[in-house]
Amino acid sequence: MTENTSNQYPLEFLAAGWNAGIKDATLDFGVLFSKRPCVSAAIFTRNNFPGNPVIVGREHSARGAIRAVVVNSKNANVATGPQGLQLARDFCRWTAESLSIREDEVLPSSTGVIGRPIDPEKIKAACEAIPQKLVSADFPGFARAIMTTDQFMKMRSVQMKSGARLTAVAKGAGMIQPDMATMLSYVATDARLEKADLDRLLKCTANRTLNRLSVDGDTSTSDTFAVLANGASNVKISFPQNAADAYETIADPFIPGALSSLPAMSTAEIEFLLEFQNAARDLTKMIASDGEGATKLIELQVVDARDRSQALKIARSIINSPLVKTAVYGGDPNWGRLIMAIGKVFDEPVNPEKLKIFFGDLPLGKAGEENLQALSNYLKNKEILIRVSLGEGKAAETLWGCDVTEEYIRINSFYTT
Amino acid sequence: MTENTSNQYPLEFLAAGWNAGIKDATLDFGVLFSKRPCVSAAIFTRNNFPGNPVIVGREHSARGAIRAVVVNSKNANVATGPQGLQLARDFCRWTAESLSIREDEVLPSSTGVIGRPIDPEKIKAACEAIPQKLVSADFPGFARAIMTTDQFMKMRSVQMKSGARLTAVAKGAGMIQPDMATMLSYVATDARLEKADLDRLLKCTANRTLNRLSVDGDTSTSDTFAVLANGASNVKISFPQNAADAYETIADPFIPGALSSLPAMSTAEIEFLLEFQNAARDLTKMIASDGEGATKLIELQVVDARDRSQALKIARSIINSPLVKTAVYGGDPNWGRLIMAIGKVFDEPVNPEKLKIFFGDLPLGKAGEENLQALSNYLKNKEILIRVSLGEGKAAETLWGCDVTEEYIRINSFYTT
Repeated sequence: MTENTSNQYPLEFLAAGWNAGIKDATLDFGVLFSKRPCVSAAIFTRNNFPGNPVIVGREHSARGAIRAVVVNSKNANVATGPQGLQLARDFCRWTAESLSIREDEVLPSSTGVIGRPIDPEKIKAACEAIPQKLVSADFPGFARAIMTTDQFMKMRSVQMKSGARLTAVAKGAGMIQPDMATMLSYVATDARLEKADLDRLLKCTANRTLNRLSVDGDTSTSDTFAVLANGASNVKISFPQNAADAYETIADPFIPGALSSLPAMSTAEIEFLLEFQNAARDLTKMIASDGEGATKLIELQVVDARDRSQALKIARSIINSPLVKTAVYGGDPNWGRLIMAIGKVFDEPVNPEKLKIFFGDLPLGKAGEENLQALSNYLKNKEILIRVSLGEGKAAETLWGCDVTEEYIRINSFYTT
Repeated sequence: MTENTSNQYPLEFLAAGWNAGIKDATLDFGVLFSKRPCVSAAIFTRNNFPGNPVIVGREHSARGAIRAVVVNSKNANVATGPQGLQLARDFCRWTAESLSIREDEVLPSSTGVIGRPIDPEKIKAACEAIPQKLVSADFPGFARAIMTTDQFMKMRSVQMKSGARLTAVAKGAGMIQPDMATMLSYVATDARLEKADLDRLLKCTANRTLNRLSVDGDTSTSDTFAVLANGASNVKISFPQNAADAYETIADPFIPGALSSLPAMSTAEIEFLLEFQNAARDLTKMIASDGEGATKLIELQVVDARDRSQALKIARSIINSPLVKTAVYGGDPNWGRLIMAIGKVFDEPVNPEKLKIFFGDLPLGKAGEENLQALSNYLKNKEILIRVSLGEGKAAETLWGCDVTEEYIRINSFYTT
């Protein structure tokens, strides 16, 4: 899943990754570039202290024409003062000059330690090297260059029946890293989309995938999720407002066939939406699996809720609960801790008579007496499904997270940048 | 601080702790009793799945005449169905019969594993033994009997110049324990108070002490904080509404002299309020120090906030952040993590130019360059003060918490009840 299984990258994109000496001799600089103009959409961290690249990235994304993404790892360029903001701007200017494009066609990202200055000369030299380095669609090289404490490279490529292609790349070993913020995710596609449709697609998808991910509940200062569509395949995709509204009401958009009823969308468009959301979900699951110190991926489904807001609040409480996370780590089918985590959402009371909890397909009884052995066996899996039915309505939310282990503590207590 | 330093317990109270065989041969049953009627106040967990003793305790506390507290440890009587609720009622009835008082003069508490039935015969036998066991003011015996995973007994006694006495007792090694919910805290005093004054006093004090404590952000199903005032000292104390309102506006009520300006209160009354809040704060600090696996107590002051709500939201984000807690454990004066935790309170943006952060008296610079050695040395202390000045106004909040260690993970992952 982490390696590309085809060479069918989206047409007319180039990608590369190399070492620019930001900190050491490992890969630390990546470029993704479309040879033709793009329609783009991007969303960013809600942290009130965003990194300088996020500040500049928001400005440039406003026009919706990003066609180059430049990323350095090993330093987040966060809280580095006016010089840091200037560097984020220069990063785009130098890249634009090298690629002969406009500055606001460039999205910059930086990921790594917070609060330390970057040597501008290293960034400048790397930008000047772009024409020489950017010679093929080396998406895996790009995906590797943006990694920080990630244990594996995260990429997913799809070639659709319609002929459109999509490659999605991410980095992250948690919503935030030890001194090493962040989650970054980019999707390149050769489908052709209008800006408004792409904005809706990105937002709807994020709210079912990357915005439903938590490793530790800490929100990084650099989170970025962007999509670049260059239209090179000539496959036209639209995602009108009424389809987006219908999508929002689907309890579980990952169930096969769930998208088939969306209004005013063609087979190719449904296929694109499906593949786009599935690629984003796969990246989400890879990041959760790679959560710092994690041994288990948790998929949490809160179903039969009154509305999605109720489902989301309760799901967030469960997925972030240290006592639920340690119970999963220890293989303990602990009903009491799930009840505690559901009950501490003070403004969403739940009827205990209607509440049902499952690990996989196994119902979790109060003291777990009936299924204790089966439940314990189930909890030995690397992927754990927790399903909580509130019995209040038809809404649902799915979140992804991971267990918490001694290794998480060690990484974050004694990690030296 | 944990042992009583005087024998001056409040007059006409009896206390005892013994083994009732709930689970093993250790202390597991405690009684606190006033020989004369009391005025009482109590507050309970806001968890939507409260334990059965909390349900019954709320009913009985409504009349404000609790004069006996009965506690079993080793089992929380939470989520034990109709039988569990009946047992909580029988617990009070059997106690009332033994002490020849009304059922609604009894406050029951249970703490320990969730979701397992208690043998009613053991509770009944223990209640019947009360007259024989309850022969002195053995507050330390009571304090020991209510412990679960606590590493030390938590008690504070004060004899005031006015002649009033107060003894406060608590248990807890976190807001919640591994299968072993909870925080319980009781204050006995021989001062004389009206019900309305006692209610205000308890609420105001809780919002400056126990409600400002977090070990892991998980809220137990059994939290109880109660005060019993029997008037035996004949020292009359009132805490009128206007004094309570004035108290709420004080930025830091623990600063010497901070309470001296409260309206319509005598010297003896100011002294009582001061000692009451200080005893509650001491219990709070003891619980934070005894947080599961903790090596360090964190006192967090968020000051110069626009209002207390802003201060509290930002303080909660910091004190519960796994990355701040691991940084304290690892002795890392990590500016970036504090910035992250402040910035992720999306609805309370803060001006970075005005923000100042201190560890103890040491300012924390962006990369900590100037004071790095001094800061690292400071972080070797067992008690760490983090002070965050927002530069927005005059409001403040103080919270207490602790670091998070591998031992927290071990206790909660592999702990067998």
